[in-house]
Amino acid sequence: MRPYLRDPAAIYAESFETVRREARLERFPPAMEPVVVRLIHACGMIEIADRLAFSTRAAEAGRAALAAGVPVLCDCEMVAAGITRRFLPAGNEVVVTLNDPRVPALAQAGETTRSAAAVELWEERIGGAVVAIGNAPTALFRLLELLDTGWPKPSVILGFPVGFVGAAESKAELARDPRHCDYIALRGRRGGSAMASAAVNALARGALEGDA
Amino acid sequence: MRPYLRDPAAIYAESFETVRREARLERFPPAMEPVVVRLIHACGMIEIADRLAFSTRAAEAGRAALAAGVPVLCDCEMVAAGITRRFLPAGNEVVVTLNDPRVPALAQAGETTRSAAAVELWEERIGGAVVAIGNAPTALFRLLELLDTGWPKPSVILGFPVGFVGAAESKAELARDPRHCDYIALRGRRGGSAMASAAVNALARGALEGDA
Repeated sequence: MRPYLRDPAAIYAESFETVRREARLERFPPAMEPVVVRLIHACGMIEIADRLAFSTRAAEAGRAALAAGVPVLCDCEMVAAGITRRFLPAGNEVVVTLNDPRVPALAQAGETTRSAAAVELWEERIGGAVVAIGNAPTALFRLLELLDTGWPKPSVILGFPVGFVGAAESKAELARDPRHCDYIALRGRRGGSAMASAAVNALARGALEGDA
Repeated sequence: MRPYLRDPAAIYAESFETVRREARLERFPPAMEPVVVRLIHACGMIEIADRLAFSTRAAEAGRAALAAGVPVLCDCEMVAAGITRRFLPAGNEVVVTLNDPRVPALAQAGETTRSAAAVELWEERIGGAVVAIGNAPTALFRLLELLDTGWPKPSVILGFPVGFVGAAESKAELARDPRHCDYIALRGRRGGSAMASAAVNALARGALEGDA
């Protein structure tokens, strides 16, 4: 077997160098660039840089919110598992309500998915929060509906639901009308929990490094 | 906002129908097909079907191993978080050694990554196990090295490390010489924990449904 790179620092450096060399990053504001690099690093796909939708101040808003100690609301356990706790600048709470015992009944009553029902349980924490959706289109759709009913606004919505039913549509709706929230989203079918947590990790590192 | 599909069963049905309609599945043996469908479902990318490398009996081997109660060894917490426990046919143990307190010293001693060092701690459980690698190329490289030293063989290696340094190379090495193990891997830079856990979930469902 051929030798392979083992030094963690060298692996990171070479990875990020490759991303910066190959990806089209020119259109991103400076604070967004490290977020885009980490998103690409998480999925191995240079070309997603061209499909990202975002509000101009999304990265600053996310960093400032995390520095201020807001919680991170995730649509599934995988997103939470991907968040590097030591990057979080204020020991921020990472919340997943999907397995809350109230969710199955809420889903049944609302004739919807558990993922969408779980979002209802975010009400008390949503104001100013960082939202990271890496799995369920219905979670993003439901959040937008609840914002339309007058819910307090999160600081930033990281929209990375994935798949063939509703993923592209929910992210297009977010980009079309972000309900006065900052947001970052990957258009189309692609997405996933690794991207959602990479976005949180990038914002957290930015906040930790004090350049929010 | 336009109405969206909320019924979980309808969402699953429409998703899998889309995958089956769009993806080229003809080249896969019958037992592999549901694995490929779930892999595509997890990442939103039809075209990965064309980049999968696998041994002919990988799906049967994985199903049979899970039915027999072997553990699932994962390279990171995100893979473990993505495994649907109720699908596991024998309450199989899901093991992640990455955060074992011995790992940092092992990594330092071996001048390697924590992910590679964590694999060393699989020795007692590796025989017959299902291995799911969804993050670190060095974990897959290290596993192959340890198999070359005479370690007992796992039943199946699910190779989905992701990224720009070593991911494509480690999976190419697995496909070139799988060390007499069954395997499924996605060639190239793409991969990730969602795919690794989707592969486990597909094998587990297959085992549960008794068509192993």
